[in-house]
Amino acid sequence: MLGRTYEGENCSAARALEIVGERWSLLIIRNAAFAGMTRFSDLEHSLGIAPNILAKRLEGFVVQGLMGRGDGGDYVITQKGRELCEVIVALCQWGDRWAAPDGPPVLFQHADCGGAIRLRLQCDKCAREPTSAEVVAVPGPGFR
Amino acid sequence: MLGRTYEGENCSAARALEIVGERWSLLIIRNAAFAGMTRFSDLEHSLGIAPNILAKRLEGFVVQGLMGRGDGGDYVITQKGRELCEVIVALCQWGDRWAAPDGPPVLFQHADCGGAIRLRLQCDKCAREPTSAEVVAVPGPGFR
Repeated sequence: MLGRTYEGENCSAARALEIVGERWSLLIIRNAAFAGMTRFSDLEHSLGIAPNILAKRLEGFVVQGLMGRGDGGDYVITQKGRELCEVIVALCQWGDRWAAPDGPPVLFQHADCGGAIRLRLQCDKCAREPTSAEVVAVPGPGFR
Repeated sequence: MLGRTYEGENCSAARALEIVGERWSLLIIRNAAFAGMTRFSDLEHSLGIAPNILAKRLEGFVVQGLMGRGDGGDYVITQKGRELCEVIVALCQWGDRWAAPDGPPVLFQHADCGGAIRLRLQCDKCAREPTSAEVVAVPGPGFR
């Protein structure tokens, strides 16, 4: 774990935040996943992040399996890292609605057809799209 | 803003993280949204969080409009706060896949029909569900 654990928690969101909840983590993943960055210097300059912090985050990502090391020493995002895209898109959708007075800075498109990509809640049973208020949390198989 | 800004960023994910990216923030929102907690003491004891940190987070949430103050001084989540459910579900889905060896601790259900709720990427044009690798980011109207 990357230091900041939530010890009393048995929650997958808490586990995820232990891995990518520190400052800069998700923005580094964003630049790797959506801008294809693999080089330390590209990440450093694009984010304006202190190199010691970046090195610490990348080292943690390698330990956690979010990134692997390429032949040239670069950082290559893994499937585990790439699947954080959904978290990043969820943050963007919320920020677009509530913190983007000039409109969305970035749009997400489907590479295949150019269509707009949206992240949506869906019920597997009735196929409807519930509002946030209609989603309830219940104990799952890993509950204790 | 709650202190930790990303000044060089023009990105809705960065804006969202400025508001809820600090330690404990999303877990407080989780307990308010999914467990219906409104009282300081309930949040404090359920999370095992230091009261001075909780007070600071809640104060920030009120300033940011994620929570309002109820008649008894309690904290009532707003629509802006509740819509962070999507971010929390996205974190849980990722954590369930990658950090839940005993299975998902929590499942999300549709209050109306009891069906399983999933957060899924969908293309508005071809209606398919793209993989993370098929999602590309392009400049939007708020780009600069």
